[in-house]
Amino acid sequence: MTPSNPNNDAKNKNSAWGGRFESGPAELAARYSASVAIDQGLWREDIDGSLAHAAMLCAQGNISKNELEAITTGLNAIAAEIAAGTFVFKSELEDVHMNIESALIARIGDPGRKLHTARSRNDQVATDTRLWVLRAIDQLCGTIVSLQKVFVDRAGHEKTTIIPAYTHLQRAQPVLLSHWLLAWVEKFERDHSRLLDTRRRVSVSPLGSAAVAGTSISIDREMTRKALGFDSVSRNSLDATSDRDFAVEFVFDLALIGVHLSSLAEDWILWSTTEFGFVRIADQWCTGSSIMPQKRNPDMLELMRGKSARVIGSLQTLLVLLKGLPTAYNRDLQEDKAPMFDAFETVLESLKVITEVARSIEFRRERMAESLNSGFMDATTLMETLIRNQVPMRTAHEVVGTLVKTAEKTGKQLSELTDAELSSAATGIRTEVLRAALGPARAVAAFSSAGSTGLASVEKQLEWWKATLASR
Amino acid sequence: MTPSNPNNDAKNKNSAWGGRFESGPAELAARYSASVAIDQGLWREDIDGSLAHAAMLCAQGNISKNELEAITTGLNAIAAEIAAGTFVFKSELEDVHMNIESALIARIGDPGRKLHTARSRNDQVATDTRLWVLRAIDQLCGTIVSLQKVFVDRAGHEKTTIIPAYTHLQRAQPVLLSHWLLAWVEKFERDHSRLLDTRRRVSVSPLGSAAVAGTSISIDREMTRKALGFDSVSRNSLDATSDRDFAVEFVFDLALIGVHLSSLAEDWILWSTTEFGFVRIADQWCTGSSIMPQKRNPDMLELMRGKSARVIGSLQTLLVLLKGLPTAYNRDLQEDKAPMFDAFETVLESLKVITEVARSIEFRRERMAESLNSGFMDATTLMETLIRNQVPMRTAHEVVGTLVKTAEKTGKQLSELTDAELSSAATGIRTEVLRAALGPARAVAAFSSAGSTGLASVEKQLEWWKATLASR
Amino acid sequence: MTPSNPNNDAKNKNSAWGGRFESGPAELAARYSASVAIDQGLWREDIDGSLAHAAMLCAQGNISKNELEAITTGLNAIAAEIAAGTFVFKSELEDVHMNIESALIARIGDPGRKLHTARSRNDQVATDTRLWVLRAIDQLCGTIVSLQKVFVDRAGHEKTTIIPAYTHLQRAQPVLLSHWLLAWVEKFERDHSRLLDTRRRVSVSPLGSAAVAGTSISIDREMTRKALGFDSVSRNSLDATSDRDFAVEFVFDLALIGVHLSSLAEDWILWSTTEFGFVRIADQWCTGSSIMPQKRNPDMLELMRGKSARVIGSLQTLLVLLKGLPTAYNRDLQEDKAPMFDAFETVLESLKVITEVARSIEFRRERMAESLNSGFMDATTLMETLIRNQVPMRTAHEVVGTLVKTAEKTGKQLSELTDAELSSAATGIRTEVLRAALGPARAVAAFSSAGSTGLASVEKQLEWWKATLASR
Amino acid sequence: MTPSNPNNDAKNKNSAWGGRFESGPAELAARYSASVAIDQGLWREDIDGSLAHAAMLCAQGNISKNELEAITTGLNAIAAEIAAGTFVFKSELEDVHMNIESALIARIGDPGRKLHTARSRNDQVATDTRLWVLRAIDQLCGTIVSLQKVFVDRAGHEKTTIIPAYTHLQRAQPVLLSHWLLAWVEKFERDHSRLLDTRRRVSVSPLGSAAVAGTSISIDREMTRKALGFDSVSRNSLDATSDRDFAVEFVFDLALIGVHLSSLAEDWILWSTTEFGFVRIADQWCTGSSIMPQKRNPDMLELMRGKSARVIGSLQTLLVLLKGLPTAYNRDLQEDKAPMFDAFETVLESLKVITEVARSIEFRRERMAESLNSGFMDATTLMETLIRNQVPMRTAHEVVGTLVKTAEKTGKQLSELTDAELSSAATGIRTEVLRAALGPARAVAAFSSAGSTGLASVEKQLEWWKATLASR
Repeated sequence: MTPSNPNNDAKNKNSAWGGRFESGPAELAARYSASVAIDQGLWREDIDGSLAHAAMLCAQGNISKNELEAITTGLNAIAAEIAAGTFVFKSELEDVHMNIESALIARIGDPGRKLHTARSRNDQVATDTRLWVLRAIDQLCGTIVSLQKVFVDRAGHEKTTIIPAYTHLQRAQPVLLSHWLLAWVEKFERDHSRLLDTRRRVSVSPLGSAAVAGTSISIDREMTRKALGFDSVSRNSLDATSDRDFAVEFVFDLALIGVHLSSLAEDWILWSTTEFGFVRIADQWCTGSSIMPQKRNPDMLELMRGKSARVIGSLQTLLVLLKGLPTAYNRDLQEDKAPMFDAFETVLESLKVITEVARSIEFRRERMAESLNSGFMDATTLMETLIRNQVPMRTAHEVVGTLVKTAEKTGKQLSELTDAELSSAATGIRTEVLRAALGPARAVAAFSSAGSTGLASVEKQLEWWKATLASR
Repeated sequence: MTPSNPNNDAKNKNSAWGGRFESGPAELAARYSASVAIDQGLWREDIDGSLAHAAMLCAQGNISKNELEAITTGLNAIAAEIAAGTFVFKSELEDVHMNIESALIARIGDPGRKLHTARSRNDQVATDTRLWVLRAIDQLCGTIVSLQKVFVDRAGHEKTTIIPAYTHLQRAQPVLLSHWLLAWVEKFERDHSRLLDTRRRVSVSPLGSAAVAGTSISIDREMTRKALGFDSVSRNSLDATSDRDFAVEFVFDLALIGVHLSSLAEDWILWSTTEFGFVRIADQWCTGSSIMPQKRNPDMLELMRGKSARVIGSLQTLLVLLKGLPTAYNRDLQEDKAPMFDAFETVLESLKVITEVARSIEFRRERMAESLNSGFMDATTLMETLIRNQVPMRTAHEVVGTLVKTAEKTGKQLSELTDAELSSAATGIRTEVLRAALGPARAVAAFSSAGSTGLASVEKQLEWWKATLASR
Repeated sequence: MTPSNPNNDAKNKNSAWGGRFESGPAELAARYSASVAIDQGLWREDIDGSLAHAAMLCAQGNISKNELEAITTGLNAIAAEIAAGTFVFKSELEDVHMNIESALIARIGDPGRKLHTARSRNDQVATDTRLWVLRAIDQLCGTIVSLQKVFVDRAGHEKTTIIPAYTHLQRAQPVLLSHWLLAWVEKFERDHSRLLDTRRRVSVSPLGSAAVAGTSISIDREMTRKALGFDSVSRNSLDATSDRDFAVEFVFDLALIGVHLSSLAEDWILWSTTEFGFVRIADQWCTGSSIMPQKRNPDMLELMRGKSARVIGSLQTLLVLLKGLPTAYNRDLQEDKAPMFDAFETVLESLKVITEVARSIEFRRERMAESLNSGFMDATTLMETLIRNQVPMRTAHEVVGTLVKTAEKTGKQLSELTDAELSSAATGIRTEVLRAALGPARAVAAFSSAGSTGLASVEKQLEWWKATLASR
Repeated sequence: MTPSNPNNDAKNKNSAWGGRFESGPAELAARYSASVAIDQGLWREDIDGSLAHAAMLCAQGNISKNELEAITTGLNAIAAEIAAGTFVFKSELEDVHMNIESALIARIGDPGRKLHTARSRNDQVATDTRLWVLRAIDQLCGTIVSLQKVFVDRAGHEKTTIIPAYTHLQRAQPVLLSHWLLAWVEKFERDHSRLLDTRRRVSVSPLGSAAVAGTSISIDREMTRKALGFDSVSRNSLDATSDRDFAVEFVFDLALIGVHLSSLAEDWILWSTTEFGFVRIADQWCTGSSIMPQKRNPDMLELMRGKSARVIGSLQTLLVLLKGLPTAYNRDLQEDKAPMFDAFETVLESLKVITEVARSIEFRRERMAESLNSGFMDATTLMETLIRNQVPMRTAHEVVGTLVKTAEKTGKQLSELTDAELSSAATGIRTEVLRAALGPARAVAAFSSAGSTGLASVEKQLEWWKATLASR
């Protein structure tokens, strides 16, 4: 049969939907609504989705084997062009989907016009985006594991290096640098675990939900699910075409990684000041000043801290975008991709940068060692010694507080207090017992609890991480 | 032994840490830093944590059985007072921890001074907060399941009610109201699943991490973990005392629930307008106007939409709070509780309200039925009929678009077009075939794909949900 | 004199600051820190700033007239290249400043090396960005005035068209469409006023503040201020090089414009539904569906609503970026430009789109008129009639509420109630008096207060706006 | 006349709007929608607004002089009760407006029922809130001026104290501490200026706009405007009842103040570390640790940094709240007050705290002086000396960079380099000329540009500020 009158007047009407329109979009409208500059990032997923869809349409008798072959050949050729950078995306074709479909129709004619059978851009873009997120998650997880390995490796070489731990940025207690490094491995582990949980909710195929209600054409959603590697098939077409939870959740995971990286950056920016001096960042990861010839600035770390703001902003964009929208697809959803892509790129690059910075950063052990001589960081261990000798905790705290005040006034360390000074505060306990807790090395050696900075605890952590990461 | 001079000068010095201080905090400082107005919400968890900690200290020989008994009796008495509303929290004692510990010391003396042995407020507050979040999650999950049951129940009674599905707020295709209701059950299911994933990361005991580095006193962290119902013990004290990921992740889950509720509210606000008229919200869930006597306003739903903004704001507060902080505890972290508590209360109340609104809302089937007569919502099914009759999809789209334009100009529905009009657009297909797709009832009946709005698909969804929810 | 050994080893060292470095940045570092892809948007301002700076250096005797001429000619040639699109920005040269300076040195040699005398990139980028914001504000203000004129013009043609005003999206009172249109002119006026206030704080020249502390070289800041059109000169170099308040404030102004546009879009999305039917958006500003041939979707308005989320996200990015940064320039600040540029482009385009949509939107007066027959929108005027007849306000509210309930039960409008029904609720007032308030036209005619929707008030508003806008 | 049947069945119906309702709100609904716990903060403004409104109603003949007197006496008595803390706000009366009106009616009967004549809660709450913001702005401005005076005063005492200025947290150039202090006065000045601009947009009286459309009752809006101290009267009732721009703008101003305070806090947290040691915060503004007896933590500053996150979150809440709302009053707007009140309280308290911290902080001049001996902070002045001796700027930068590298390798300061070392880099300039630029004191003395850290510039700033602040 020959349909009358398809699209014969439509030089500037959109061929995908122009049938009922008297005129095409204004130029400003076309520019304002075009998304292809952004969503061309989905090209590979779009083609993968179309290949799977076409194979299914053929298996269900909706298109012939010849038509399938034409479509497959055509799509593969287009993919090759895009990969080679020779494909020209046109903004007047709105989005990546229409760009690819138009190119296909131009290449193979009618079979191309059948590809969109039983499919809407609503389920198509949901499918593409979910595929893209799955791949992004896998890439991030790999990068996180690499980063964890660097930290574990460096921890292995700093098992006995002591640094001040800070709370409130005031010197608190002496800890092993290895313990500090492994704290970061924990934080990244939660990021990894969160991404894997998100992955389960992403890995649901919406393909076959069509515009909003499903389709009357015979399709096999299980077949496309398998072909595309999704774990399950969505249960409800209305939900499947409007759901963007997976995107927000993914960007939240990224935002929290960003927050972690911002804190790590903050620590190392502090540590690389003249005042702290605990690390020297390699020249390759520093920059200088256009006016001050002496400067070596930790710009990569500052940028990492700054870029985390951008990821947080992207998360907010997505939440604000969705808030208050009525059910099912609204064009607002088009705006989900720019913040998601940007958040992913930003965090992936940041992870790569911090991996290399961590690999090459110089720990200045002599400066770390010098720093241990002030700040009374053995005070807590001294207090715990009193407690182990039956002084009630709150009383012991008072006693040591008074000793610290004495030491501070006389410009001494706790270990430099005289026997008389020590005894005046804590009568009844031999001063040798007290002195055994003093000095950073003794203080660190005293830690015995699970998860503490004591050497045994740190070695246990190290073994656990080596085994865990080796199996990934 | 008797320690000299504990705390004898300190009328206005803080008894928990005043030892080395010459003077106590300024009144403005005390007011600015006091958190007890907020963190008293943790009182039950604080006492539970202290009971478990004391039992462990005794088992490890750090305190005697008599001391344990005094502590236990004292804490239980304090708990009873707080529950009865007779306990007076004092802001000069800073926080919930110091309020309870001070009351304990006032009651039982020296044994109370030993309770804080091998513990810092840093691990104490982390423990309390995690316990609180665990309980909050369990409460939310129960509330979500109740809500899902109401939606499933109402869907069971609306299996054949047809409504317009909207995309872009324009009428799209006819769908079953039950299908629409079940779409929401899907969204709430993801919220439920997300909370359970978060729960795993929350259920880690930080108790025993002390200030930042662990302790030299003999403790048994596994014992307190079990007593408090945590799934595991944290591996690294530096991480455990500074980690607030669990709080941010929890509030993110709440924010996404808020976004869902805001969209549901938006739908029903629209549906209850004079213009849509699909629902009537029960008087109990509406309010009127102080000046316009005729008004019945859907205020609960508007507030629900509005309150979701607050939850999004709370998430932002937490992310901004953490961004760029250096390692380990900083006092900024105190500000984590107000937004978290508020987000939880807001979402829990909203869930309860929507459950009751959903239970009592009247679906005005006659208005829904009337609405189906305009909007050309059978156009897509007509197009799919053409496709099943071998018209390429893109061509079929053009053909039906043209028919819609014809119908619109002549003020007809598609089913009212003459045979001539139908044939003029789609030559070669018998008009009876085309007419079989027209009208909303026929269009809905035609949907056959998995997850579609076809009756078989909806009944399958219903069965699945009934079985799933029954088992919870 | 000849300096020894400048930069002779530095193939991969940065020529702007590489002197003290052993090696240049890693490739990943260069990519991560390069900003030229974004900040090339400042090229014109950068060149304008350099021209003014060079002229001042010459007037102060720091460079010769010949050198100035070489610099001026060189910079103008570079500007022409950039404008023509033939200039190649290189990311290894970091930013727009270094790209232009390098090109200048390549072109004119030593005089180019003197351009950066008494200047740092810190004051340079602050100058460029402020200049850029000034120009952006001027462009936005012009666009807002155009938009206001369209609204005023359309209001002039709808002076007597009555529509329902909604509160809570429930029909409230009848108002003139012209009054509704002028409400938007008010909102845009505040946007305009806010931008002008911001402008004053932007228009402060930081040039001459150098890196952070000023310079020892003789300069004339007043001369460059005048040349660049700033209103004043900054007072403190530390503040001037670190301040980004102007950027945040500017983006806040944009975010609030975005919020306004999102609400206007929401109104017209609702009004263009089948259910409301008050407007028809021109084909040029709608799009269709790839699967549903009948659809005409208000995509531009949905995008406008969605894009406002992006602007809000950008504002958050900036606030988060700055929060907690230590004094003076930190590299984080580089991240200020992407969100600011994006927010500006987004809002400017949105303003242009809404101007054209507003110019071409069809007000469907017959649908508006039909809508007035339900919703009891005359109830308040009836109540006010009672009040004018000495019924206390709260009592009158009760009385009319009861009448509405009666009317609703019997399916009538208030004007259709019988004399008996009217009298039963309001004894002692003649029913003719009451009937004079009933019906939308009478209700609108009754409004008499300043700023009300009464015709006299609306005409006064119209005159005010015509005079005000004509003078801009 | 006697109206029949007012409100006789309505034990649990709302007396303000219950006329047409069959039943009152559910208990959960009442709790969910009650705002009085928050908006009672507006009580004074609500009463002021009602007093002005009543006086106007009387002047216009809508109520009698006796009625006015009854209302005035009644409202003043209620105000006294609230001020005394004896007034009981009831959440079942929804909001502050209904609580006060109900109490008035209970006290004085029918005249109380007339108070709401020609007024809706929509214009009432807008009026109250604008009044509240005006007063909040005035309070903030006063507090900012006090803070500026403290900074100017301290700067006057530190005119010759030299500290390192940091960029990228790396030592950059030596500056006067007074210059650093005055940089903050600049930032607070912009905050002050922004609040005053906002004030103009707040100071617009919406009273008389009624629900949305104005009123048919005779009123005099100019009279209430004057009585309440607003600068002008709103022009459009639809806009006036829905506008919340003033609230968002106010909270933005607060957020930016929060950002400033967070940065100042960050600086002083750093400066009070053992590593920097530039300041000692007074005991009254520090707190200790419950486990580490030696700790003195800068908690007030950490809280200030943390609380700024809360203000940013509140701004986000407001923007999200408004985004996408349809025209005119929606109940969502009720949620505007909690974030606004919280942001105001937070920032006001923070400003007071920082004022006292700044007044009492000890500048440790000896530590500041010691810090100047490393970091090559005179390098830029050395470079500028070369430039003044005709070395092109970029070349001079290279030369000094090389000298820094030499000095760093040999562990020297630039001033300690030998003549040979100096000459090897910069041939042709006498080393005495170079040495004149070396050392922090000489470097500071060299700064001559307007706004620089040179003493003349700082003294000029000081004079300007003293004069400016004296006049406020």
